Amino acid sequence: MRIFARTLTVHAHCDLPCGVYDPAQARIEAESVKAIQEKYQANEDPAFRTRAIAIKEQRAELVKHHLDVLWSDYFKAPHFDKYPQLHTLFNDAVKQAGAGGVKGSNDPATGQKLLELIAEIDKIFWETKQA
Amino acid sequence: MRIFARTLTVHAHCDLPCGVYDPAQARIEAESVKAIQEKYQANEDPAFRTRAIAIKEQRAELVKHHLDVLWSDYFKAPHFDKYPQLHTLFNDAVKQAGAGGVKGSNDPATGQKLLELIAEIDKIFWETKQA
Amino acid sequence: MRIFARTLTVHAHCDLPCGVYDPAQARIEAESVKAIQEKYQANEDPAFRTRAIAIKEQRAELVKHHLDVLWSDYFKAPHFDKYPQLHTLFNDAVKQAGAGGVKGSNDPATGQKLLELIAEIDKIFWETKQA
Amino acid sequence: MRIFARTLTVHAHCDLPCGVYDPAQARIEAESVKAIQEKYQANEDPAFRTRAIAIKEQRAELVKHHLDVLWSDYFKAPHFDKYPQLHTLFNDAVKQAGAGGVKGSNDPATGQKLLELIAEIDKIFWETKQA
Amino acid sequence: MRIFARTLTVHAHCDLPCGVYDPAQARIEAESVKAIQEKYQANEDPAFRTRAIAIKEQRAELVKHHLDVLWSDYFKAPHFDKYPQLHTLFNDAVKQAGAGGVKGSNDPATGQKLLELIAEIDKIFWETKQA
Amino acid sequence: MRIFARTLTVHAHCDLPCGVYDPAQARIEAESVKAIQEKYQANEDPAFRTRAIAIKEQRAELVKHHLDVLWSDYFKAPHFDKYPQLHTLFNDAVKQAGAGGVKGSNDPATGQKLLELIAEIDKIFWETKQA
Repeated sequence: MRIFARTLTVHAHCDLPCGVYDPAQARIEAESVKAIQEKYQANEDPAFRTRAIAIKEQRAELVKHHLDVLWSDYFKAPHFDKYPQLHTLFNDAVKQAGAGGVKGSNDPATGQKLLELIAEIDKIFWETKQA
Repeated sequence: MRIFARTLTVHAHCDLPCGVYDPAQARIEAESVKAIQEKYQANEDPAFRTRAIAIKEQRAELVKHHLDVLWSDYFKAPHFDKYPQLHTLFNDAVKQAGAGGVKGSNDPATGQKLLELIAEIDKIFWETKQA
Repeated sequence: MRIFARTLTVHAHCDLPCGVYDPAQARIEAESVKAIQEKYQANEDPAFRTRAIAIKEQRAELVKHHLDVLWSDYFKAPHFDKYPQLHTLFNDAVKQAGAGGVKGSNDPATGQKLLELIAEIDKIFWETKQA
Repeated sequence: MRIFARTLTVHAHCDLPCGVYDPAQARIEAESVKAIQEKYQANEDPAFRTRAIAIKEQRAELVKHHLDVLWSDYFKAPHFDKYPQLHTLFNDAVKQAGAGGVKGSNDPATGQKLLELIAEIDKIFWETKQA
Repeated sequence: MRIFARTLTVHAHCDLPCGVYDPAQARIEAESVKAIQEKYQANEDPAFRTRAIAIKEQRAELVKHHLDVLWSDYFKAPHFDKYPQLHTLFNDAVKQAGAGGVKGSNDPATGQKLLELIAEIDKIFWETKQA
Repeated sequence: MRIFARTLTVHAHCDLPCGVYDPAQARIEAESVKAIQEKYQANEDPAFRTRAIAIKEQRAELVKHHLDVLWSDYFKAPHFDKYPQLHTLFNDAVKQAGAGGVKGSNDPATGQKLLELIAEIDKIFWETKQA
């Protein structure tokens, strides 16, 4: 039922704040990043690869933005007290979305690792929403 | 089960194309728009309302963008043949996200109508994904 | 005289709406796209070609945006009734501006086809303005 | 005939460079700015006026961008030698598009003055294109 | 001498990475935010205040971006080990740059507090650069 | 002491105007451009070079933007009268930040030349601030 409920409460963020957030936004862009890496591996045309790299750069930047929004705007002091690993988890995730991760690599494994880090954040997010 | 499956296949779009799409992106921003309208109605402070209007404008523009992506990049001729109302449905939705709809109004009812139009698109989208 | 009049009424769009629109904005970016493709064909330097592809991606995205604005904000139901091919014409044009068209190809012929589709939209636009 | 020719050679800019430019892009946004100012004067609703001001700010910024592109990328040393007033004309125009002009005022007269400055630039531009 | 050295090593960030960073970018935008708040307090014209709020929103968002870049890209695990308060300091700073801080208030005191938090980050940043 | 003062008065620009400006913003991005060019020369991996070119394009565009802001918003007629070379100096600098300079070349010497032109602007800027 939590899954079902989640599909009915997918939310966006704006810093009014509108009060609605959802890790799906970061995961969505991260799935795009991994898909781009897979297409890159399957296509050796230089022009295609140039487009893939340029577009992946943009999607990865969006992942970083959506994660920064959750970390800076949704999660509050009590959350960081309850989940002492949360700061590091977010920092690892944004680094994985950056040059040391998916931006600097076209290996889908780096995109998969990013998705796994976002999944950890997603799990904590929904626990806090149900608290 | 379709709902569950959907939660596992939330996808983004990039015009590589990465081949992944999801109406959730438009719905997410539309839920933000409606939430902003509700907060606008509940707060008469001029400074707050100015921020609400400026931010709503941005989120509504994102709704239009995400809908345009689905209409131009995901849906193909066979879909438009099978769903003859699809062009009009999309056109109504982007107009509802614009000046004649949520951009020009702070009534949450306009945001709700936008969400309902997106839900219709979402229903067709998932039917085509399962076809 | 219509041509002359047109040059005096080149208009932009904003979704206030300011009420001013012009297909020239889309055509302008499309001419840029075709020119980039021609320069790409004439220069084999990898660094130059990388720049050309990255910049073409941006101009093509602007073409899509300007076309979406006309389709969603300028054209109304009566227009779509009078020009039953209009939805398909716009959808073909934005697809031509995307991955299946100029974004995914460096052949100036794809840029030329995009310009021709925009010219068809431009013709209908000015007919409606004079109606 | 120059007018007619112009309509067939409306061009955009990209800094590849694609080699295509046109003052129409700046004029288009400036006409939008003036139209917004006129609508602002005709509507006293605070919410509408907030939207008008926020949108005018964006269109005025686009005017500045399009003028900067012409000044930095299209016009070369020989042009500045032949038209000694060109630097000042451009500087006056971008200032008119800024806080001291249309951004800081909702008087359509400021938008009209901006259009007149752009028209002077447009005249010189087409003279250089025909040289 | 450290001050002098700093003026010669003001650096930007890009996620290539280019390896150059500087808290000045965040401080610069934060000083703009505070200046906007001061001008807001000194001018009761509704149109001016609308512009001030809309522009402050943008500058505050840039502060958040520049801080996120430092937190995610410059600072590494050893830094977080050496400065255990660093995660919280950054989180407090981005929150101060958001709705709960300068975005949601026009009191220059909120801008001043933001500048002080950035100054703390700046101090640690330069200590790590000299380590 | 001027150096020290400068570090305490690093300022951003917004076109409210907030009244704060600093050439450091342009220099910061230009230092990033030069660093990217150096990394490009040191790494022959095609994927890395594609990223370097795409990112350099963005940073160079930011240099142009920050210079345009100083030229259009900070410097006034009296400054241009006192420094008759200022228009040409700015025009040379934005051209050096464009296709004919750092955008079209991966030679760090072009980045160095850009930095030197910005340094000349910086010198004049601080003279006018102290006048």
